[in-house]
Amino acid sequence: MKLASAFKYMNKDIQQVERQIREVTNAENSMIQSASNHLLNAGGKRIRPIFVLLSSKFGDVNQDKIINVAVALELIHMASLVHDDVIDHAMVRRGKPTVNKQWDNGTAVFTGDYIFARTLELLKPFKNNRLHTVLSNTIHELCIGEIEQIRDKYDVEQSFLTYFRRIKRKTALLIASSTQMGAIAANVDRATENMLNRYGYFIGMSYQIIDDILDFTSSEKELGKPVGSDLLNGHITLPTLFALENSNVKQAINDFFLSDYADTQYIYDVIQTIKHSHAIERAYQVSQQYLEKALALVDGLPNIEEKRLLKQVALYLGERKF
Amino acid sequence: MKLASAFKYMNKDIQQVERQIREVTNAENSMIQSASNHLLNAGGKRIRPIFVLLSSKFGDVNQDKIINVAVALELIHMASLVHDDVIDHAMVRRGKPTVNKQWDNGTAVFTGDYIFARTLELLKPFKNNRLHTVLSNTIHELCIGEIEQIRDKYDVEQSFLTYFRRIKRKTALLIASSTQMGAIAANVDRATENMLNRYGYFIGMSYQIIDDILDFTSSEKELGKPVGSDLLNGHITLPTLFALENSNVKQAINDFFLSDYADTQYIYDVIQTIKHSHAIERAYQVSQQYLEKALALVDGLPNIEEKRLLKQVALYLGERKF
Repeated sequence: MKLASAFKYMNKDIQQVERQIREVTNAENSMIQSASNHLLNAGGKRIRPIFVLLSSKFGDVNQDKIINVAVALELIHMASLVHDDVIDHAMVRRGKPTVNKQWDNGTAVFTGDYIFARTLELLKPFKNNRLHTVLSNTIHELCIGEIEQIRDKYDVEQSFLTYFRRIKRKTALLIASSTQMGAIAANVDRATENMLNRYGYFIGMSYQIIDDILDFTSSEKELGKPVGSDLLNGHITLPTLFALENSNVKQAINDFFLSDYADTQYIYDVIQTIKHSHAIERAYQVSQQYLEKALALVDGLPNIEEKRLLKQVALYLGERKF
Repeated sequence: MKLASAFKYMNKDIQQVERQIREVTNAENSMIQSASNHLLNAGGKRIRPIFVLLSSKFGDVNQDKIINVAVALELIHMASLVHDDVIDHAMVRRGKPTVNKQWDNGTAVFTGDYIFARTLELLKPFKNNRLHTVLSNTIHELCIGEIEQIRDKYDVEQSFLTYFRRIKRKTALLIASSTQMGAIAANVDRATENMLNRYGYFIGMSYQIIDDILDFTSSEKELGKPVGSDLLNGHITLPTLFALENSNVKQAINDFFLSDYADTQYIYDVIQTIKHSHAIERAYQVSQQYLEKALALVDGLPNIEEKRLLKQVALYLGERKF
């Protein structure tokens, strides 16, 4: 289900965003075109554009500008997903290196770069320096988050702080930028802009934690990738961090990482163990805490229809199953 | 030899560029830091900054702005080199897939992104929209060029047009942007700016062709990579295009590509054949033609000291041995 369908009256805006994403990623080069199409057709919740659109309603409507900002944020998200693929492909290839996969790597890198370059072209006309400042800081942090994700792979000794700092950079700041940039583009007053930014940040943290939970609890069909992919790929997320407090689980995960993936059946048992352990519930509670912080912030916002919607989106994201 | 040392009186500017590149790529994250240091210590001719600096002398000196543009162009070049590595690593891995190399892939992707993001931060303060337009168009074309390079790999049927269009996008436009952006940043009149842009373009074409020749004729020590790497990695460059006119050579290269690198000794004979064939001389002549076009343009420039230097740089680049 696309989030947009829950908010019918935003459909027109969302459709405009979709159309423009297609236009921007339209390329003469057939390789880029098919990679972009693949991404577009894979869909996505478009939560970043939705947050831009909702936040902008707290200020002056400047439709074209707002849509451009919404498109830009979704494109940056898409570009980072494409670059993420390089790492994930690397892992998939770990067992079976194929020429095809290696071709994909190079294409993924420059398709991501291409989408990124197109995004810059899109944002160029905006004179508001703060829009550019927020965005470039966020991209900067996003890159560090992604590199930290590589650095922290297989590290069963990493702390909770390391995990939270990483998901802040990797996910939460881009969502916080969505709400903030929607506000800036609509000349919303600073106090409201700050509240919207904080709201986005808390939602982003909650969102990523739920993503990390769903990687264990959802089905392969819903995820579009195997259950437990994070752990299989060496990523330690919040449920795993809680589960690592059990020394047997820790030993098992460590053995799996050290075995260089020889014994994959074994790790599936570990994934099942985590799935049915308290680790999931504890991670869920942390996610809920962030969500409640977001909801509390909404209360302070000016009383317009979108205030209610921001609450609904938060609740929807907190309850999503994939 | 660094090109800068040939132009002593530019040394101060170049040193400022170097210092600022180090500052900009300075990162809290140790993984990014060591990747950036590796890049910086590997050196480079810094021809893009040199062209920015020289071009700017045809207008008003605005030192900080010029230096920032010079740094930005070198950083974009560096970021694209880092992303190029992903493809090259993929090829090196083709024979020997190692976990280490796969780690490098992910790091390379996001280190490149990080350098790119830092570049955007650097250029943000500039209000001149044309600076941003030139740069984002160039990055856009650069990405397409890189993807074309992947698409055209192993294609022994590709045309000369395909090759020239690819190196235009991949190399010449960024050098043309260097001369042009130096001019824009210094408020040089449009006629001179256009000449400088054309000069940069012709130099860029010549430069890339010579690079492609040196890949055959230089030594491994000078290149920093094995002689014939381009062909070994499936890249068809101008010398190879000329050599492909010989049906025996074509057959041999085709066999090599199809053999999936089983018979590498054989391809070294082909590389030796190309190295000592007329293909090198013919490619060199094409490079010289571009160089002469660049030199002819210099004649039309205003008579200042830098006019002589632009000629010297062109001649130096035409004669370089690595």
